Amino acid sequence: MFSKVLVANRGEIALRIVRGLRDLDIRSVAVYSDVDRLSQHVRYADEAHYIGPADARQSYLNVERIIEVAKRCGADAVHPGYGFLAENAEFAEACERAGLVFIGPSPESIRRLGDKIEARRIAEQAGVPVLPGSGELTSVEEALACAERIGYPVMIKAAAGGGGRGIRLIESPEQLPGAAARAMQEAAAAFGNPAIYVEKNLKKVRHIEVQVIGDRYGNIVPLGERECSIQRRHQKIIEECPSVAVSPQLRRTLSRAAVRIARAANYHNVGTVEFLLDQDGNHYFLEMNTRLQVEHPVTEMVTGTDLVKDQILVAAGEELPYEEADLLTRGWAIECRIVAEDPFNNFLPSVGRVVFAREPAGPGIRVESALYDGIEVTPYYDSLLAKVTAWGRNREGARQRMKRALAEFRVVGVATNIPYLQQILDLPDFIAGDIDTGFLDRNQVLAEEHYEEQRRAAEIAALLLVTGGERDTGEQPLNGQAAPTNGYRSQIGAWRRQQGGSTFAGGAMGRWPRSF
Amino acid sequence: MFSKVLVANRGEIALRIVRGLRDLDIRSVAVYSDVDRLSQHVRYADEAHYIGPADARQSYLNVERIIEVAKRCGADAVHPGYGFLAENAEFAEACERAGLVFIGPSPESIRRLGDKIEARRIAEQAGVPVLPGSGELTSVEEALACAERIGYPVMIKAAAGGGGRGIRLIESPEQLPGAAARAMQEAAAAFGNPAIYVEKNLKKVRHIEVQVIGDRYGNIVPLGERECSIQRRHQKIIEECPSVAVSPQLRRTLSRAAVRIARAANYHNVGTVEFLLDQDGNHYFLEMNTRLQVEHPVTEMVTGTDLVKDQILVAAGEELPYEEADLLTRGWAIECRIVAEDPFNNFLPSVGRVVFAREPAGPGIRVESALYDGIEVTPYYDSLLAKVTAWGRNREGARQRMKRALAEFRVVGVATNIPYLQQILDLPDFIAGDIDTGFLDRNQVLAEEHYEEQRRAAEIAALLLVTGGERDTGEQPLNGQAAPTNGYRSQIGAWRRQQGGSTFAGGAMGRWPRSF
Repeated sequence: MFSKVLVANRGEIALRIVRGLRDLDIRSVAVYSDVDRLSQHVRYADEAHYIGPADARQSYLNVERIIEVAKRCGADAVHPGYGFLAENAEFAEACERAGLVFIGPSPESIRRLGDKIEARRIAEQAGVPVLPGSGELTSVEEALACAERIGYPVMIKAAAGGGGRGIRLIESPEQLPGAAARAMQEAAAAFGNPAIYVEKNLKKVRHIEVQVIGDRYGNIVPLGERECSIQRRHQKIIEECPSVAVSPQLRRTLSRAAVRIARAANYHNVGTVEFLLDQDGNHYFLEMNTRLQVEHPVTEMVTGTDLVKDQILVAAGEELPYEEADLLTRGWAIECRIVAEDPFNNFLPSVGRVVFAREPAGPGIRVESALYDGIEVTPYYDSLLAKVTAWGRNREGARQRMKRALAEFRVVGVATNIPYLQQILDLPDFIAGDIDTGFLDRNQVLAEEHYEEQRRAAEIAALLLVTGGERDTGEQPLNGQAAPTNGYRSQIGAWRRQQGGSTFAGGAMGRWPRSF
Repeated sequence: MFSKVLVANRGEIALRIVRGLRDLDIRSVAVYSDVDRLSQHVRYADEAHYIGPADARQSYLNVERIIEVAKRCGADAVHPGYGFLAENAEFAEACERAGLVFIGPSPESIRRLGDKIEARRIAEQAGVPVLPGSGELTSVEEALACAERIGYPVMIKAAAGGGGRGIRLIESPEQLPGAAARAMQEAAAAFGNPAIYVEKNLKKVRHIEVQVIGDRYGNIVPLGERECSIQRRHQKIIEECPSVAVSPQLRRTLSRAAVRIARAANYHNVGTVEFLLDQDGNHYFLEMNTRLQVEHPVTEMVTGTDLVKDQILVAAGEELPYEEADLLTRGWAIECRIVAEDPFNNFLPSVGRVVFAREPAGPGIRVESALYDGIEVTPYYDSLLAKVTAWGRNREGARQRMKRALAEFRVVGVATNIPYLQQILDLPDFIAGDIDTGFLDRNQVLAEEHYEEQRRAAEIAALLLVTGGERDTGEQPLNGQAAPTNGYRSQIGAWRRQQGGSTFAGGAMGRWPRSF
């Protein structure tokens, strides 16, 4: 087993991996950029090393520097988390050359599955349906011909993309030439590869993905599906395990398909096979992500596994500690991604100092977060602040607990999408499980007047917490409906002036105590 | 279903119940004494009402006042939590008289099982073994004769006691008369009933208890056992579910015995049947607790139930939502009770202001707590600050996660038993599961020198967190071994002076980042 592992990431996922390492009694090494020197992943790791300026290209994407640190501190292995270098085959190779185990699949698997056209080919050869589409395209004419053949609307995708990046929806032939040209330019800039392909766009589809894990001895175990249809601009924000749309029969079919694809790619370690599921129950392979997924906790809570621990074990050469038949799945889990974006201002990223954060807790709630009072949210990295996962005996139990957790969550100083998530959870179609990838486009939620009221309550509540203000409750009338005292009101006024008059959002209050 | 429930308790259990109510979409009403007006249970409830001075007799034990508040705010029911009025039959009756549902068993069940001698009788009639012992004793002579008959050592117990209170170990006839007389006096003062009884004292026994829940229709479901042998002065501090000592066959036997006792007492709602288990695998009924138990989270995590939610449902007249066969038990859970006691100063209660608290989190960890930065720990109530529960696929996985959680836990301002718990978790006999109720007496743990080092690290770490101090890491040497700067040292000095030179303990650091 490894004795020391470097975590080549930051934020909540770095902390999650540090915890997994500690559970295995392996020493953890954090790396950090200028702006992350006070981060939780730095504080909780056994040691921490500076790797460069805030700009990720000079720190978290700096392959040479990270490998130098890993070698000098005596690490045996590197865990890439997700994002940054997690799907970078060159980084995996550089680790191997330096004598470090890359905790993930082989560079060969990463490369083949990272090429989305090659991945389609692997799926087809494994007998898994793919969407009608093209191979690699090098000209607008080819794209036009292919789109004509499969019928509009179509999607244009970057061959080297993935995770929802580099996707364009094309409704008619007129839109295609300009869009295809721009897509090639952007793909060249973003991924260093201009290749694109065309895929049929289905209406009303669900995004369903299957978690798999494999060891180095050919054992591959599927861990059930996740429902990830609640997306905003191709970015997942609410995920579930299992899916209301997946019957035991379909689960078997999807699991077998996922395992065949993984086997065809010689896969080991964790990976996720993504499918689209249409309204008739047909499934189509979308792509395979060769890394841990943001939404892995929902699978962990339902299956009772620890995917981070297990991926470290198999990377160290151990056999998988379970077979499919050993897994005892139980209940339902829902995850919400808490991001620093202002849902009432066109989801603009929100940056600044979090002066106060209080995370939810209690039965069935798990929070993966790197928040702390005083953390600076910068524009340098992903806007994910925390992930809240709620488990229940059934979907409605999980949903109720999630509502409770979001109502408990306090973030003061930056805007978050919590009010948006709260409103989604209450939509009748969401409650019924009647969702698809177009769900959020169709459901323009967010009642402003509701929000104003919430924000006012949030300000009062937050001030009480921040200032440790005393409540005038000793002789409070029995009905408990006392209004905030003038003392609080003047504090709120001072606070607002100090903030230059700008408002601050945060956890919407749900039913905050009436007695404040 | 209820629309509003008053929670007649405080601290972590009140917050736990508020959360359970919110998961059921029931409005919650908190009550609070003078010193609790800023408490978490007050902040998180839908409304909160002042009930009296800090002294519990004038607030949390003030039956009349609590019922008055419940009536005036329109509550349908009262949840007593544990402690305070939870096992008070008069309170349950007063609720019923006032038209409020008492969320617990009937006053009759509470009264019969609260009388420990009557409870022994119920067990015997239900065919469950009890320890050799006496009935109610009114004289020292009777006690001597009974002890002679069953053989020393014996325990003297208060008939109205329970939960480890009012217990005396008697090794020889010389000790008995004085001890019995004092026990009767104390029982009269503490419980309003001088009656005592004598019970055989077994060597090397485990404390094993079975959780049961019943509805008003005669359905009683056992929810497996808990191992609660790690006790200090008859107070449990580490609990597990399941127990290494309980085979599937024994689990069936104990479960059936527990259900028979509950049925004989006409029991509904949650309850716990406690047994002693000797080294030969014989079990003896000890007592039945007619309320939710402090350690209920370990059962919840292994069985996937929500005992608070379920006890509200059955109190409202619903049928139990599961049968024994429906329960899917999975893995292992361990709970540690975090109390404000100084393990390095004879476990003296520690009071004062918690200037900083940070609770553990991450996979498999659940924290039930009412801590917040600035909370005053007073001498008025129980010293329980928080409960940490760790779940793992097996016992060792749960133990490793618990170690990680305790190392993450920071409490600055009052001493806690965290260093003591950490050392217990590392004892070879604990790791092997070779434990009994005398375990802590035999194992004098707590290495002072280890603690000194931990405390120094804790001070530095806590100061960094409290002051938001900046680390001089930008140009830190690659080995990450930089010592705290002089700036921190002087801050620590100032802190110590401010505290009147007294030390402050808190979460022991485990492996705190070397780079601090």
